[in-house]
Amino acid sequence: MFSTDQQSEIDAARAGWAQTRRTVVPAAEDALYTPLPVLETGFVRLIDYMGGDEGIVQGARVSYGKGTRSTSDDRGLIRYLMRNRHTSPFELAVAKFHVRAPIFVTRQWFRHRTASINEYSARYSVLEKEFYFPRPEDIARQSSSNKQGRGDSLPADAAEQVLALLREDATRCYDHYLEMLNQDEAGNVVDPTRPVVARELARMTLPVNVMTQFYWQINLWNLLHFLRLRADAHAQYEIRAYADAILTLVERWVPQTFEAFRDYMQEAALLSGPALRALRAVLAGDGTVDLQAAGLSKREAAELIALLPEIGSRAR
Amino acid sequence: MFSTDQQSEIDAARAGWAQTRRTVVPAAEDALYTPLPVLETGFVRLIDYMGGDEGIVQGARVSYGKGTRSTSDDRGLIRYLMRNRHTSPFELAVAKFHVRAPIFVTRQWFRHRTASINEYSARYSVLEKEFYFPRPEDIARQSSSNKQGRGDSLPADAAEQVLALLREDATRCYDHYLEMLNQDEAGNVVDPTRPVVARELARMTLPVNVMTQFYWQINLWNLLHFLRLRADAHAQYEIRAYADAILTLVERWVPQTFEAFRDYMQEAALLSGPALRALRAVLAGDGTVDLQAAGLSKREAAELIALLPEIGSRAR
Amino acid sequence: MFSTDQQSEIDAARAGWAQTRRTVVPAAEDALYTPLPVLETGFVRLIDYMGGDEGIVQGARVSYGKGTRSTSDDRGLIRYLMRNRHTSPFELAVAKFHVRAPIFVTRQWFRHRTASINEYSARYSVLEKEFYFPRPEDIARQSSSNKQGRGDSLPADAAEQVLALLREDATRCYDHYLEMLNQDEAGNVVDPTRPVVARELARMTLPVNVMTQFYWQINLWNLLHFLRLRADAHAQYEIRAYADAILTLVERWVPQTFEAFRDYMQEAALLSGPALRALRAVLAGDGTVDLQAAGLSKREAAELIALLPEIGSRAR
Amino acid sequence: MFSTDQQSEIDAARAGWAQTRRTVVPAAEDALYTPLPVLETGFVRLIDYMGGDEGIVQGARVSYGKGTRSTSDDRGLIRYLMRNRHTSPFELAVAKFHVRAPIFVTRQWFRHRTASINEYSARYSVLEKEFYFPRPEDIARQSSSNKQGRGDSLPADAAEQVLALLREDATRCYDHYLEMLNQDEAGNVVDPTRPVVARELARMTLPVNVMTQFYWQINLWNLLHFLRLRADAHAQYEIRAYADAILTLVERWVPQTFEAFRDYMQEAALLSGPALRALRAVLAGDGTVDLQAAGLSKREAAELIALLPEIGSRAR
Repeated sequence: MFSTDQQSEIDAARAGWAQTRRTVVPAAEDALYTPLPVLETGFVRLIDYMGGDEGIVQGARVSYGKGTRSTSDDRGLIRYLMRNRHTSPFELAVAKFHVRAPIFVTRQWFRHRTASINEYSARYSVLEKEFYFPRPEDIARQSSSNKQGRGDSLPADAAEQVLALLREDATRCYDHYLEMLNQDEAGNVVDPTRPVVARELARMTLPVNVMTQFYWQINLWNLLHFLRLRADAHAQYEIRAYADAILTLVERWVPQTFEAFRDYMQEAALLSGPALRALRAVLAGDGTVDLQAAGLSKREAAELIALLPEIGSRAR
Repeated sequence: MFSTDQQSEIDAARAGWAQTRRTVVPAAEDALYTPLPVLETGFVRLIDYMGGDEGIVQGARVSYGKGTRSTSDDRGLIRYLMRNRHTSPFELAVAKFHVRAPIFVTRQWFRHRTASINEYSARYSVLEKEFYFPRPEDIARQSSSNKQGRGDSLPADAAEQVLALLREDATRCYDHYLEMLNQDEAGNVVDPTRPVVARELARMTLPVNVMTQFYWQINLWNLLHFLRLRADAHAQYEIRAYADAILTLVERWVPQTFEAFRDYMQEAALLSGPALRALRAVLAGDGTVDLQAAGLSKREAAELIALLPEIGSRAR
Repeated sequence: MFSTDQQSEIDAARAGWAQTRRTVVPAAEDALYTPLPVLETGFVRLIDYMGGDEGIVQGARVSYGKGTRSTSDDRGLIRYLMRNRHTSPFELAVAKFHVRAPIFVTRQWFRHRTASINEYSARYSVLEKEFYFPRPEDIARQSSSNKQGRGDSLPADAAEQVLALLREDATRCYDHYLEMLNQDEAGNVVDPTRPVVARELARMTLPVNVMTQFYWQINLWNLLHFLRLRADAHAQYEIRAYADAILTLVERWVPQTFEAFRDYMQEAALLSGPALRALRAVLAGDGTVDLQAAGLSKREAAELIALLPEIGSRAR
Repeated sequence: MFSTDQQSEIDAARAGWAQTRRTVVPAAEDALYTPLPVLETGFVRLIDYMGGDEGIVQGARVSYGKGTRSTSDDRGLIRYLMRNRHTSPFELAVAKFHVRAPIFVTRQWFRHRTASINEYSARYSVLEKEFYFPRPEDIARQSSSNKQGRGDSLPADAAEQVLALLREDATRCYDHYLEMLNQDEAGNVVDPTRPVVARELARMTLPVNVMTQFYWQINLWNLLHFLRLRADAHAQYEIRAYADAILTLVERWVPQTFEAFRDYMQEAALLSGPALRALRAVLAGDGTVDLQAAGLSKREAAELIALLPEIGSRAR
């Protein structure tokens, strides 16, 4: 995935140790700079961080003054903050990532507005011939139940046909891109008598599975919000692959926050007012509760039963 | 540009008048809902607004209390606020636009994070066969002086060749898109025995000059900031075309703010500390001031002379 | 609460009807400009709005394209958006309020960073002699269970003693403020031979229950987030009084969104991963589930039982 | 300013060195944790940082790809980015401060919405008996020319009278605060038979010159924006004192950015369109240019002459 030059840069960065008075998280240091491969041609790597579980606790204690020091240990305090969505201490921790991803993924990614982004500019530089092609098993049918999701995988031969189309389009479009730029893949001018079309124009013919790269910096609270939405079954598989990789880095960097995130955000479920009332009726009664009669929509009713299958015959 | 149905919807919206106690700006009402064409297949239209010059003045006067009422008229106050970048009264006015633009333009657009966006979802719905193709005269060479700009137009035949490439790629990619979706342009299933690839996957083969559409809501201060950067010679021509169209709507909606924007933002120039000191030396002395010796970079020196050509031989 | 002049201004604003093509919500029009009294000397009033339930639906349908039109009615779509926290359509609606509140309340209020604020400036103008004094029944003991809350009301005589202290401090500090400004309550110079201390300095002696006022503009999603936190039993009573008043305005302005907010935000509860697992054990089993053994903290366990009292003896 | 305990904590933090692979800025390390006194009873200290000049350059180079590496050195690139307000690379550097300041200063401070704040909670804990009292020479008259500024210092005896009022109010209000809390300054209960008023209520009698404290985290671009507005002659002296102290920390942390900030933000001036046209007339002509006839307001004309006094008799 990396050229020899790039690998040397990473090795050099990893070899450079220095002394600091700031909070250091050894497991995060261990992960620094090393790319985690995502979607074959993409990656994500942690390139800087500030703070950690310890700093979150310290930030919370500024608000509470002397009052809290004795009562709760750090883990308990972090869980308390997470459970009650006291977000500001989590904002004090910050991470910076370097990401390579297809453009259609970045379009979902950058809808999260509370981050700082420095992206490779296709006005300034030539995009490399790197595209995302799904693995055959990831090529799936349109879901029949979910208008914005995918269903079963395609049969192998149909998947190969799709891949052939994607490869053909990427190749031809990239060839035309170079033709407009009047250069070959090595960056040499092809025909000095022909004009070079402006990069900002030529790039318009590239499909949205071309790879781009960017630096992404975000505070921990906003990062967790991103991860809850994107490391989730409702997110498109391709962005989920990045979110899952980032989660492993978060776990190393802030293990106590990660655990609280899992319990209170990722695995938590929001029960609506009507759902709670229906559930109380289930717990109180001996008959069967009609969830739709209790004010839940058909979809909500199904979701509640899926969440609590042990309800069994007591609700429908 | 619009189907009969869409045009009827616009006509119906424009025909629907109602009574309100809120600030009404007749010239903005006059512009409401009507699309302004941009880049042939694109448009921008104002679909809602809140406040106006009057409300900005009122907002400022909350801060100033009784103190200011007598001293300055509305126009003067708006100019004062703009000159001194007192941004909060301008934040009180809000506009909502409906935009159709190519994806590569929206990628620049959405880097402005202080707006609310609702974009057409290519996971949920099928993208239409609408692409942006530049007019031949807009197809230009890579600028030799500006790494992220364009220079002269291409000769007519070379421009036609570029257009042919763009058209070929768009057409073939879109055909493959439909092939993966197993549907024709009218939305009918082509072959009931073949699978329908998930929309979120099939769209990855579309080039970034495919058209998308979105609602965009932004407060006036953030809008002016966007316009200063994008209705500017350094911006890519394609997004500038949208910014210019929006400017005409802003002028109708908040004419006094528009005038102040032009004088104090768009036509204003920032002179650095070194540039100011050099300029003072020019004004004080009788010889020639060497701008680079005075601390300006070569590029800054050239910019200062371009800004004030009447300096003539007094600086170099 | 209002001077004759101010009341005339409000009456004039309410009398001024004009024609608009924008979305009009009659119940919001009906409420416009009229102040709702809060905390005796404070108020909140709606002074502008943009959009409504209808516009939220329209914004959502841009994202969904043609796909959704037939399937769901407006109310159902709003409930779906709220339940799944699809926030961007709610961001398209905006409201502007005029508020008078004590400084200690605004300090909590302005921690919500996603709004535009124009506040009365005590550097520019003289603050009026308006303070917040609680009603005797609102003067309460420090809560013994909640470190940041209040418990029972004080006995009447003790409450009167507290009020006497508050009144004495406010009066004396305000007298000193005027003394530094060398003016009387009517704004006349007291002694032309004495200096007038800068307003920005003199104001530093005023206590945080002095009243200030501000314009506050916020989009509907951020407003609902504010209301969920502040129209809540954990919020300080004084800011809750404002949030409750704003809720009545929201109900008039966007009744369907209000209803969805109540069901899916205000009355909803988040069940953590451990709580859900414990609840499933309760539903499945016949014995008693030990919640703390199941991973809940003592406080969480108590909260779960309070939420679902019908659990009865099946959990402890 | 600090108790023995607090000083020991600072000493311990400063003594704790560890190894890191991240960017380290030795001059920032040297400053870490040590409080800089501001306004006698206040302070500001740097408690964490991420990135530095080097990281800013690296972030910019992601955008420019291979294109820029050879052409410009780091200092030149930082100056270029600053001059052209390419803000995103500066957003990649982050700093965290611990601040103690009077409430009226924090009210101005927190109007900057793009930072993360963890403030001491007066609902949760008791505020200490720490107030800001200006030095006699800082007590000044209301400015006659600037409605929101101060003019000359007061005569010594008048200043002492003001200080006496401020001290009296602070002392009496704080005594009443403790009386409501039924505790003495050491935190002991005074009379076990009397009720303890809720802290969130009792604090409402404290004047806005009482000291509070907070953690403040902000990215470098937003920090520079804050500093340009607050380390400025138009800002109130008290917040300027904090901004000036922070500037000395910024200079140590990111010296190249600091230098560019000074040249291109702090010492720069914005010339409006009309001012530029007038200046060109001055440079071109031999007579005297009437600035107000050229479209400048009286105040703008005076500002232009103050900025470029060498214009002399050529403009009025």
